[in-house]
Amino acid sequence: MLAVLINGVAPDDRDRALSASDRGFHYGDGLFETIRLSAGRIRFLDDHLQRLWTGCERLAIAPPARTQLLEEIERVVASHRDGVLKIVISRGTGGRGYRTVGEMQCTRMVALYPAPADTAPTLTVQWCDTRMGRNARLAGLKHLNRLEQVLAQNEWRDPAIGEGLMLDTEGELVSATAGNIFLVRDGVLATTDLRFCGVRGVMRAQALRAAAALGVPTSEEPLWPTDLDAATEVFITNAVRGIRSVIALGNLRWQPGPIAQRLSQALTA
Amino acid sequence: MLAVLINGVAPDDRDRALSASDRGFHYGDGLFETIRLSAGRIRFLDDHLQRLWTGCERLAIAPPARTQLLEEIERVVASHRDGVLKIVISRGTGGRGYRTVGEMQCTRMVALYPAPADTAPTLTVQWCDTRMGRNARLAGLKHLNRLEQVLAQNEWRDPAIGEGLMLDTEGELVSATAGNIFLVRDGVLATTDLRFCGVRGVMRAQALRAAAALGVPTSEEPLWPTDLDAATEVFITNAVRGIRSVIALGNLRWQPGPIAQRLSQALTA
Repeated sequence: MLAVLINGVAPDDRDRALSASDRGFHYGDGLFETIRLSAGRIRFLDDHLQRLWTGCERLAIAPPARTQLLEEIERVVASHRDGVLKIVISRGTGGRGYRTVGEMQCTRMVALYPAPADTAPTLTVQWCDTRMGRNARLAGLKHLNRLEQVLAQNEWRDPAIGEGLMLDTEGELVSATAGNIFLVRDGVLATTDLRFCGVRGVMRAQALRAAAALGVPTSEEPLWPTDLDAATEVFITNAVRGIRSVIALGNLRWQPGPIAQRLSQALTA
Repeated sequence: MLAVLINGVAPDDRDRALSASDRGFHYGDGLFETIRLSAGRIRFLDDHLQRLWTGCERLAIAPPARTQLLEEIERVVASHRDGVLKIVISRGTGGRGYRTVGEMQCTRMVALYPAPADTAPTLTVQWCDTRMGRNARLAGLKHLNRLEQVLAQNEWRDPAIGEGLMLDTEGELVSATAGNIFLVRDGVLATTDLRFCGVRGVMRAQALRAAAALGVPTSEEPLWPTDLDAATEVFITNAVRGIRSVIALGNLRWQPGPIAQRLSQALTA
């Protein structure tokens, strides 16, 4: 971690920063964003903040003061030009028990991490055994209940595997462990509709928007593993790593395709 | 909170205690136990620690040193005679990303809270709108991904409602928001089998054991809301509050029954 502020204050020299009563720690009761800082620019910050506020609304978490959060982001980014900006908003600190008592003030964490080292534009992926539970109430949110993703990413250590694809408990395709999945079939760019689980990614929305602007027809729909068999192009989107083409999954092989390339160009412009 | 130690150390005077990198905060990557301290006795401590260790094994979290944890429990309980002891074990502190890197040392939180004020032996309950997602990989664990319970408990403020009953996303009965559910039908004591979700409660196990010792036939099986219609007795178990009889749910009414009473007596003996 290059820098961090908790409610505007840096940890002490023993790295003590968070309250022992924080509901993020006790229940995963909060939300987060990971945002790319690249060449001095915070990429898609407005989109990330928009999703954060939407998440706060859906979970009935009192959002932070926007100007205060922006000021803390500026302090943490400071003179850095590249990295990963992470914002965590928890419901705040409170007594024991799931129920919230009285008006709560959210906890703000703003941190900067080094830019990722693995920036290969293509990925070999594998299936994860860990499934995602379905719950429309939480679907799409980038909340702090992430045990499924933790277990899924710990299924492999082979550095040749760049990502894992996850199914939900009914066998429907959801996403990668940390990114949304897109495939091209008959010229249509399709991605999963995330009605039951998964995270509604900022880069996913950007890719859909850029495709529309380029005249590429798009579809958000339920997808199943067999849909990959007919795909001419497969890629994964992630706010930190952008668009990465999937070139292998089991016996399946793909070439980095023209749509991924055009979207990448449009989104880095 | 009456007392708390994080890795054996008390928070500073600003209540800063936890690392900003703790995976409990970032991902809910950990487990917890809430244990009753009553008349100077820590109730069912061995069972709680057994479940904690089982949970660590299932999530591949390195458990704490048992003697160290016991010593911290002793320090936190100190001269108190009543209260709620809470233990939280997270996977530890680590860099950004779901994947764990290298050997991690778990974070230990041991805290004592006041005993609950609401100790009525009977409960009026209601149905919660919030459902539990199904995921056998996490079923039974008392892990830190508790957003569903947080949302469910925040559905009502009416103090006359003592608990909420939760269904899973397929409509199967799971449990209360913070306790397991039992019902008596044709003389058999039945509880949900928790194969898809819910927490395998310490008091649930005690109730099943005590029933067997008393010669009451028991069953762990899938239960549905309609199973309540035929129940002659309904109660909820919870490690902190023991056994509480459900007396009303919508139009349904029950009397506190003889099995709940006999089990309560056996378990407080």
